[in-house]
Parts: sequence; structure tokens; C-alpha cells
Amino acid sequence: MGQTGDMDHNIPDPSVRRLSAYLRQLERLAGEGATHVSSRQLAGFIKAGDAQVRRDLALFGQFGRRGVGYEVADLVNVLRTILGTRQRQWPVVVVGAGEICHALLTHRGFAERGFDLVAAFDIDPKKIGKKVGGVEILSMDDLKPVVDRLGVRLAVLTVPAEAADETARRLCEVGVEGILNFASTGLDVPEDVFVSEVDITAHLEQLSFRLISHRP
Amino acid sequence: MGQTGDMDHNIPDPSVRRLSAYLRQLERLAGEGATHVSSRQLAGFIKAGDAQVRRDLALFGQFGRRGVGYEVADLVNVLRTILGTRQRQWPVVVVGAGEICHALLTHRGFAERGFDLVAAFDIDPKKIGKKVGGVEILSMDDLKPVVDRLGVRLAVLTVPAEAADETARRLCEVGVEGILNFASTGLDVPEDVFVSEVDITAHLEQLSFRLISHRP
Repeated sequence: MGQTGDMDHNIPDPSVRRLSAYLRQLERLAGEGATHVSSRQLAGFIKAGDAQVRRDLALFGQFGRRGVGYEVADLVNVLRTILGTRQRQWPVVVVGAGEICHALLTHRGFAERGFDLVAAFDIDPKKIGKKVGGVEILSMDDLKPVVDRLGVRLAVLTVPAEAADETARRLCEVGVEGILNFASTGLDVPEDVFVSEVDITAHLEQLSFRLISHRP
Repeated sequence: MGQTGDMDHNIPDPSVRRLSAYLRQLERLAGEGATHVSSRQLAGFIKAGDAQVRRDLALFGQFGRRGVGYEVADLVNVLRTILGTRQRQWPVVVVGAGEICHALLTHRGFAERGFDLVAAFDIDPKKIGKKVGGVEILSMDDLKPVVDRLGVRLAVLTVPAEAADETARRLCEVGVEGILNFASTGLDVPEDVFVSEVDITAHLEQLSFRLISHRP
């Protein structure tokens, strides 16, 4: 098993995304009982070249052995260490208890990947106090106490676009440092808060772009 | 207004994603009544450099005027043309009528961006025949007739991971050419079918990676 080097602050987002893609495939392979995987196999899963895989992993240290490939269980541990989900379980709050929140809370699989959806928040009195997927929907007044008590650093923002900036501001005020944003509007947050955008329309546009480019 | 050049088949995914990000911001600016925008402003929204914006747009032609910037309405049209949502409205089917499907069908905003969610499909007799967000849930037996009749080329796959490959195979058989995959498992599809993956865990990992890299 290799050593993970110092985390480089300049790793670009696409490289980090590929690390997650490798990890998803390795978790699947581990579930199927596979013990070894080649960079070519890993590359095939995400339709990249095997040189790309080796380059991505080389950013973090020396892994794998020529002719043998990577040990699946080792590489899972390495990638989880790099991505920060091996050392700890991240408590995550969801703000905005609408349909997306519902889908997230009823989805099994986040916890075993290092993310515990610990509470959801809304301003609608009709929603507050209900449970979805075993998680209670709380009033926004409870946001700060919950974040403080559980040491929450990550939040998922699923409020309507028009409420996104104000809600993001509140999240930053209570100490949230990373926001997964479903509001498909750029958030105005302090420099030191990280935002990852989920834009379903952008995914559809990716596909329509490819279709008209290749088969107009 | 500039001319969009020939579509380049080698435009990398991250560039296409940035085009979508620019378009989201321009749509918002247009809604706020803005008429012009600089590459610097556009860059600010997505935390990129303005040179990046100019480079991305230059891939497709000459837009904008020095000192004046881009006309918002024009650039919206240009980006929609590039992404394929100006020329046509894309009918889209959703396969797997679970929570994510529910969230998608009740989300307003896809249609005005060029994507009509026209039908959902499931194998569960308890779901078939119901309507969600005005869209009927149909039996998988109806997939081919609907795809044929409406000329569907895009599908959203929201079935459980273990059913993803089999369902993707059926989608390809009936002629679907692009799949938005929520199953967070790599799909084994023919070379000429495009897949875009939505992996929420990967977004969370992107954030946890940044947090441990910057403030361990």
C-alpha cells in the first residue's frame, strides 16, 4: 500500500471528481469480491485513458505494482483517505425540506460512504417535527444549536432559488464550511466557504450538446 | 451577435459544464433586466478567471466587444444554440418512479430550459397509472411506443443500482441516445450512447476533500 502525500491545494475539481468515480467503481468491485484491478480496467469504467488514471493517482503517491495492478481494498482506503471519508464520518444537515430533501433522506448509502444526514431544516411549520427516512425536520431556529452540538461543517442546500443566498448566508454564519447547492444559482458566500453545485439541467445540456454535435 | 462555429467533437466535458454555468448566470441576469455582462463578471459567478471565460466562448466563435462586454440576450441565445436547447425542445423520459423521479417531476424549470419530462416509467403496478407533477407513470411495456411516438432521445435513469444496467440496455434498445444516470454505478452501454452521471456522494466528497486539504 502506498503513502498518500501531502494534500495539494491546487488539485483541480475534475481530478477530484475522477477520484470519486474510481472509488465508486472500486467499492463495486470490492462488493463483487475482486481483489485486484488494473489502471486500464479502472479507466474503462469512466471512459478515460489508463495514463489518466495513473496520473490522477500519482498526484497523491505511489500505488499499484507493475503487472499486478492495484489492490482493491488498499486503493479504496487510499481514496477514502484522500477524500476525507476514511478518517471521519461527516455529519451533514439538509436545509429546505422539499422533494430533493425527501429523496436524499430516503436514499440509503450516504452513511456507508462517510456522510451522515443528521437533520433537515425548514421554515414551514407544517413540515417541522415530521420525520423523513428517520431524520427529523427541525425549525431553522435549531440550526445553530445542532451545528454546534454535532460539529457540522457540511450542508446541503435545497431551498428554492430565491431563498438560496439568504439561507447560504445563515449557514456560513453558523460555521458551515462546505455547501452542496441544489438551487442552481451561484451562491454569494465568503471566499473560505466551498460550494459544489448540482445542476440537473446542466447534465441534460451536456447530453443535448453531445447529441447535436455528433448526430444533429 | 457572433456566429457559432462548427461544433467540435473534442470539447471536453468541463468546458461544456462551464457553458451551462455561464448560461445559468445569464438567464438570471436576463431575469433581473441586465443587458450587458463582462467576461470578468461571468467569471466571478463561477470562480474562474476571465481569460477562461473568453477561451471557453472563443471555442465557438467571436462574441462580445472590447469595452462593452457581451449582450446578455445574445449570449443566452448563442449558448442555447451551442448546447442544443434553442433549436428544439427535448422530450425526456424518466425511468424508475422513486423519490428522485418525484423530485424531478415536481421541479419546475426544466421545460423553459429546453427539456420536457414527458413520461415516467416503472415496473411497480402500484405506481403505474399515477400522476406526479402532471406526468403519468407508465408501464415499461409502454416505453418503446412512447419513445417512438415522441422521438425521445434522452432518458433519466433513477432505478436502483442493481437494475441500472438492465434498464440502460432496454433504453438503448428502444433508441435512447443519452442517459442521465442517477444510479451511481457506471453503465455498460454502447460506444455511441452518451451517459452523464449525477453522483451526490461525489459532490460531498468534493467538499470533504477541500475541507481536509485546507483546514484539516
